[in-house]
Amino acid sequence: MSDNFADRLLSAIAAKGSPVCVGLDPTLDRLPEAVTSHARGPAAVEAFCMGLIEAVAPIVPAVKPQSAYFEALGPEGVAVYFRVVAAAKKAGLIVIGDVKRNDIGSTAEAYAAGHLAGPDSADAVTVNGYLGADGIEPFVKVARETGRGLFVLVRTSNPSAAAIQDFTAADGRKLYEHVAAQVAAIGAGEGLVGASGYSCVGAVVGATWPAQARELRAMMPQQIVLVPGYGAQGASAADCAASFKPDRTGALVNASRSVIFAHTRKEYAGLEWRQAVAAAARGFASDISGALP
Amino acid sequence: MSDNFADRLLSAIAAKGSPVCVGLDPTLDRLPEAVTSHARGPAAVEAFCMGLIEAVAPIVPAVKPQSAYFEALGPEGVAVYFRVVAAAKKAGLIVIGDVKRNDIGSTAEAYAAGHLAGPDSADAVTVNGYLGADGIEPFVKVARETGRGLFVLVRTSNPSAAAIQDFTAADGRKLYEHVAAQVAAIGAGEGLVGASGYSCVGAVVGATWPAQARELRAMMPQQIVLVPGYGAQGASAADCAASFKPDRTGALVNASRSVIFAHTRKEYAGLEWRQAVAAAARGFASDISGALP
Repeated sequence: MSDNFADRLLSAIAAKGSPVCVGLDPTLDRLPEAVTSHARGPAAVEAFCMGLIEAVAPIVPAVKPQSAYFEALGPEGVAVYFRVVAAAKKAGLIVIGDVKRNDIGSTAEAYAAGHLAGPDSADAVTVNGYLGADGIEPFVKVARETGRGLFVLVRTSNPSAAAIQDFTAADGRKLYEHVAAQVAAIGAGEGLVGASGYSCVGAVVGATWPAQARELRAMMPQQIVLVPGYGAQGASAADCAASFKPDRTGALVNASRSVIFAHTRKEYAGLEWRQAVAAAARGFASDISGALP
Repeated sequence: MSDNFADRLLSAIAAKGSPVCVGLDPTLDRLPEAVTSHARGPAAVEAFCMGLIEAVAPIVPAVKPQSAYFEALGPEGVAVYFRVVAAAKKAGLIVIGDVKRNDIGSTAEAYAAGHLAGPDSADAVTVNGYLGADGIEPFVKVARETGRGLFVLVRTSNPSAAAIQDFTAADGRKLYEHVAAQVAAIGAGEGLVGASGYSCVGAVVGATWPAQARELRAMMPQQIVLVPGYGAQGASAADCAASFKPDRTGALVNASRSVIFAHTRKEYAGLEWRQAVAAAARGFASDISGALP
């Protein structure tokens, strides 16, 4: 198997039959009672995430732990984050650490060392590109050397994204298009594109903006697009389809709250919480697959 | 004393007589032998940072621990980060956690909880504003409620900053000016501006771009500007002066490597490492004060 992250991700997607990712966003006040009756704080988050991994590993190719919810619990929470990353990898999942780190070159190197370079590090991380290429390159270097990847924020899924990311130049080009062009250029660098034709440097493009997603799909032919916004954030499977190529490759759709808190959804009432999660993950995967070309 | 972060920072600057901040960027391979002969890894970083705090607390009003260098050491390093923050506060320093966090609203809330809301949290954090207002507001809410602050990245100090941040609209406005206008508007919100006339929502503007710094000083009259880039990154004290008002308020200049690794500088040869750090901090403070109006 290729060591290129994009190739590994595409293989995992093919093996599971669906280009989806479950976001691990363990907000403490939404955990199932079956978890919180046995554990509290970081221990409850750990038990919850381990249950999630067990439930979704047979169904989806990837998980995306959101660092913020672990960091909210202090250093113990961060220790849980790293154990969750390791457990998910051991379960055969591709792990995308949603850390959105960013800094100037020398400091970005430290972030890349902490989050991407170690034997137990995530397979990929998210990166915020506001500082420009020299804040991204340290992550790219580690990705190249270790068979890992990164996803640079291009067009995010939140309501106020447009207020910054649609800032428009005299020639009509928008900031997100300018960032996309940089991501495409960086991602075409030597040793970054796998046998699949995709680069280990991907992009984040929210599903809540399907028109922009279609345009960005065309602008970044070598980028795998990580697609947040499905489910709780309001985007439909048809919206998510905008980030795929006609051959059904090129994107990985994430759902977090609608899957991991399935125990609170009426349609899964009565199911044990992990069975509810598995059912929601299957529903999510089949909804996305059904909407592709 | 006012609970407003800007007021607290200005009081601390007045008390120490100099608007400077020492960045705690503990790269493991540059620590003094006196530290590494007694401890390794996170323990060495902790001993180094505790020595730095002791050395600079009588001289400067603020320190800025850079989260990346702690995160590079894993969860133990993160635990050290929080102990360093607590120790610096206990030593009477204002602490700015350089975390550059950013995410969509609900997730930004978790970051704000983890890094700004707790009794032992930093007095302020740095925030990347690429996601727009709804990614910044959760930090603002915590700042308002807890007497803390934030510094939003506007124009960073690194070489490739211009490639993204100078993206220019049809009317000639650049992205960093657009972001500055948003920061000024957010920072003018109810309950954010202290008796000093400054807001607890500040901005990061690198000293390596003095022309832009002068312009941004005028555009954001209520923002305290956190100024990186002095020393190892190449900016002079005169460059840093561009971010101050004629009354010598309105900015806080950071130096990291040129102070904390003073033991490697020829002019401090022969001094015990903490004495070298104190001497470099005094030199830094006096260089900046001497360049102000």
